[in-house]
Amino acid sequence: MCGIVGYIGTRQAQDVLISGLSKLEYRGYDSAGVAVKDGDHISVEKKAGKLANLSTVLEQHPLAGTLGIGHTRWATHGLPNDTNAHPHASEDGRIVIIHNGIIENYLPLKEELMARGHVFRSETDSEVLVHLIEEKYEQTGGDLYEAVRLALGDVRGAYGIVVTHADHREIVAARTVSPMVMGVGQGEMFLASDVPALLNYTREMVFLHDGDMVVLHDDGFKVTDLAGNPVTRQIEHIDWDAEAAEKGGYDSYMMKEIYEQPNALTNTLIGRLHDDTGEVNLDINLDPKSFKRISIIACGTAFYAGMVGEYLIEQLARIPVDIDVASEYRYRDPLVSENTLAIVMSQSGETIDTLEALREAKKFGAKTLGIINAKGSSMTREVDDTLYIHAGPEIGVASTKAYTSMVSAMLMLALWLGRARGTLAEAEGRELLHAARELPRLVEESLTPERIENVKRIAAKYADAKDFLFLGRGVNSPTAYEGALKLKEISYIHAEAYAAGEMKHGPIALIDENMPVVVVATESKLLEKTISNVQEVRARKGKVIAILTDGDTENARHADDVIYVPRTHEMVSPVVNAVAMQLLAIFIADKLGKDVDKPRNLAKAVTVE
Amino acid sequence: MCGIVGYIGTRQAQDVLISGLSKLEYRGYDSAGVAVKDGDHISVEKKAGKLANLSTVLEQHPLAGTLGIGHTRWATHGLPNDTNAHPHASEDGRIVIIHNGIIENYLPLKEELMARGHVFRSETDSEVLVHLIEEKYEQTGGDLYEAVRLALGDVRGAYGIVVTHADHREIVAARTVSPMVMGVGQGEMFLASDVPALLNYTREMVFLHDGDMVVLHDDGFKVTDLAGNPVTRQIEHIDWDAEAAEKGGYDSYMMKEIYEQPNALTNTLIGRLHDDTGEVNLDINLDPKSFKRISIIACGTAFYAGMVGEYLIEQLARIPVDIDVASEYRYRDPLVSENTLAIVMSQSGETIDTLEALREAKKFGAKTLGIINAKGSSMTREVDDTLYIHAGPEIGVASTKAYTSMVSAMLMLALWLGRARGTLAEAEGRELLHAARELPRLVEESLTPERIENVKRIAAKYADAKDFLFLGRGVNSPTAYEGALKLKEISYIHAEAYAAGEMKHGPIALIDENMPVVVVATESKLLEKTISNVQEVRARKGKVIAILTDGDTENARHADDVIYVPRTHEMVSPVVNAVAMQLLAIFIADKLGKDVDKPRNLAKAVTVE
Repeated sequence: MCGIVGYIGTRQAQDVLISGLSKLEYRGYDSAGVAVKDGDHISVEKKAGKLANLSTVLEQHPLAGTLGIGHTRWATHGLPNDTNAHPHASEDGRIVIIHNGIIENYLPLKEELMARGHVFRSETDSEVLVHLIEEKYEQTGGDLYEAVRLALGDVRGAYGIVVTHADHREIVAARTVSPMVMGVGQGEMFLASDVPALLNYTREMVFLHDGDMVVLHDDGFKVTDLAGNPVTRQIEHIDWDAEAAEKGGYDSYMMKEIYEQPNALTNTLIGRLHDDTGEVNLDINLDPKSFKRISIIACGTAFYAGMVGEYLIEQLARIPVDIDVASEYRYRDPLVSENTLAIVMSQSGETIDTLEALREAKKFGAKTLGIINAKGSSMTREVDDTLYIHAGPEIGVASTKAYTSMVSAMLMLALWLGRARGTLAEAEGRELLHAARELPRLVEESLTPERIENVKRIAAKYADAKDFLFLGRGVNSPTAYEGALKLKEISYIHAEAYAAGEMKHGPIALIDENMPVVVVATESKLLEKTISNVQEVRARKGKVIAILTDGDTENARHADDVIYVPRTHEMVSPVVNAVAMQLLAIFIADKLGKDVDKPRNLAKAVTVE
Repeated sequence: MCGIVGYIGTRQAQDVLISGLSKLEYRGYDSAGVAVKDGDHISVEKKAGKLANLSTVLEQHPLAGTLGIGHTRWATHGLPNDTNAHPHASEDGRIVIIHNGIIENYLPLKEELMARGHVFRSETDSEVLVHLIEEKYEQTGGDLYEAVRLALGDVRGAYGIVVTHADHREIVAARTVSPMVMGVGQGEMFLASDVPALLNYTREMVFLHDGDMVVLHDDGFKVTDLAGNPVTRQIEHIDWDAEAAEKGGYDSYMMKEIYEQPNALTNTLIGRLHDDTGEVNLDINLDPKSFKRISIIACGTAFYAGMVGEYLIEQLARIPVDIDVASEYRYRDPLVSENTLAIVMSQSGETIDTLEALREAKKFGAKTLGIINAKGSSMTREVDDTLYIHAGPEIGVASTKAYTSMVSAMLMLALWLGRARGTLAEAEGRELLHAARELPRLVEESLTPERIENVKRIAAKYADAKDFLFLGRGVNSPTAYEGALKLKEISYIHAEAYAAGEMKHGPIALIDENMPVVVVATESKLLEKTISNVQEVRARKGKVIAILTDGDTENARHADDVIYVPRTHEMVSPVVNAVAMQLLAIFIADKLGKDVDKPRNLAKAVTVE
């Protein structure tokens, strides 16, 4: 979510940094900073607020120098103020770093470092890295690359890290989860968290992989893995225009965001799951034992993520949960007391219906929690606390990564409530925590070329259908609703969802040989019942597209087409299954030639009633 | 709901009565009885259980005589046993009556009669009539017609009443609400609660109107109003076959049942609303103050009636209400305690998903209440108590009168809870009670020929649409859902409903010039918001069919077509508005040539999972 730019070469670094960071502005930020090396001295300037705050200062007092690193930050740990802004420097000011992501084990590391005499100046987890690298730098006798490599061996987490040192004309960087790309110039090298930052300077790029480290010099670069072994990465010529660059080479923001989900989920989960204790740390300033009722309020896609939350919280924490669409909640004189926790869910944090519903809930004394993506948005300022989903900016109007991240946030919330209230045994908590931790990997596995080709084939086969039904049961009943909404939003096909068992109480009348029915039938204690519903569809000649767990050839016999998804725990399966729904929707819309990023009649954040 | 047959002529009355009653069997019954006059003596035979129980007795011991009256009963007051079965005779056995319906003021009348020395033998409200007529008979010096007329002047309620006297060769009958038809033969006359009972004997029929009284002799009849003024009723030749007769001359059971709604609603409400105290008497053996939560469980149409109930109960009684589709509730390990009232809703009382969900709720200790139409059905035997809707048998697969009656039952339940728990002020209670009492009249007014023609015209205009959206807000959000379901069930058009404010969060993408959007926009504090949603639809070129309150020409300007409905209180408007939805659906299905009584893939009572 943060923006990173690095430069080494012949130009004034400050100009490259500010120009590059400005191209990453759409990601949002709450502070910005640069470090520029001039001779054997590094100057740091950082400012809370918009990038303009920083660039105004730099215009008046430019930092001279041709090597520099810059950063725009979206706070995860620590307040968004000047101190907590990046870059962070070592005590002597010789080492300067920028860090995206989260260091999960920063607390024990910080304690150890303080015990060894290090003095911390910020509240960030990132500062731990500076002190660690400082120690390792001394231990290695002044080898910056090796110092960074050894320091990273001590940390657990997700990161994009960029380091420079007053005594070296080089930049050392590394990434895990957080994306990073290098730009290769003539006698100059660039580094950024995303392509658009560099397009004004070069189109020769190297995409770093997870676990890559790199050293940049004026005239070249060297990539290794974290063990220090050399790695070869190709230089690619990028002929994207600015818009294509923002789409990361995908045809649409939506597709890019579908593929970003493993990272988005990692960011949602990271630092919050503690394997050792089986606990979830959400850093929420609310007493989990004080609620008698929970009321979830949301609109559109967020509403369906809320439906999953309703199911999970009732199952794991045994608290009665209501869920309302915000536009209804606002006007229904809701039953609320100070024992009620009202949870508002919104990607943008600006959805006006949800915001007004939040105000209504507060008026009646509810405690309030936001499950929100956009930092600093209106809702985050009005709730008692926020559980950020950290999915990164979502540009596609039809939500994808915000949905799966919201569902994952709800899972963590249910785990947290369940463990704190004693309704969830430690063993089951651990099992679910483990299942949650697997989600980024499972979603990545859902996006392999073979799976993509299969969904494309099915999409092409059914793209001409005028109507679709989506069915699911239990925790995957919302998955069916979300699948129908996704298809509806971007293909304009009339897709509707039902709890599978409800179909025979009316909607089954719609089914004939022209009706494709998408059925979520992944492993579950209700699978047999769901397959009965599949057979009801088949008996009326409906076409069945079944979402099945890998290896379930038995039930594949009942389906016309199958989208297999990786095996996972039933309780977390809505995340994995949603990806299959997204792919089906986007490939059908593609086949129909629709502009998926700009669906007709829709806006990204609905700020009118 | 009860069946009535009367005969005076030359045949053995017993044969006509049993034959006629057997044709009314589909209405259900719990006891049956006949009275046959032989000379100046009347013999009565009655039996609990099926008609076969009675006819077996009569085969062994026939009652000779050519004048008789017979009845099959569906209990409203009093247990279904031999004593409570009809006919009821006066103490001296000279006067015998049959009564369908409910005498609202039977308790004070009974007290007065007992004070004057009358001894009651049954628990029925009907017996009051016998004693009253007996008194009036003496006062009028032996004028049976006048005695009945005067007695009816003392009672308030709904009735079909049939009376005979050992000393008179005549049958006196009268009706208010409860239907009644006369058959005219050669030297013989027939009477029945419905046409099919008489088709084997005559096709010359006279349909009695509300407030009609009639005296039958062997060779003719005389109709008057309740004031004694002669009234002319035409003899109509009925050439219906047996099936058409059961449809009451309508093209379908569904249409018949739509038109039966004023009567069905009267039966739902009657005897339960007390104008004088503003109280609702539901005769429910549950403590209204003992519940902390209410959980409504239903499927299909009943689920949408439950949604209205959720809204009304939360508004009027301030108890948190959850609602679940039964197929989901069964398997979700629901949060239930002995402070939970689980309300199961089912027309048939046999819906297997709902029945199993009821068992699940009971297992966890919930108190249970059924809102059910079919007497003696499985659910009624397993709930703690039942609030019967008394809508009469519903044959059409797509529910109409059971829906409006269920909504009315929910309104009464909400009133009862609200008054008992002190959350509903007496004045507001009275106002709502008054509004409820108006419902049968308002629904009747919704079915005038002008209104029917208007809906027919609109239906013809949009019958070719492939898709429909239905929108509503607040208490009429379920009306939109029910409207969409109705259209879907019988026309196979893909109709979908949304809370109006939710449309812009996704489904609005579907709207183009081919999409008719039905919007419930009757008078409400949310009307302005709803009209905003209408304008959103218009801005995307969708076609707007607005349901508006009579006289609202202002908002008619925003609609392509308007279905006006009678003005009513917002809280009871879902009943009136549902009728407009039913008409739109049935006329579209008619236009498309669909068999509305046998929609494809659907069954009336879903007794499989």
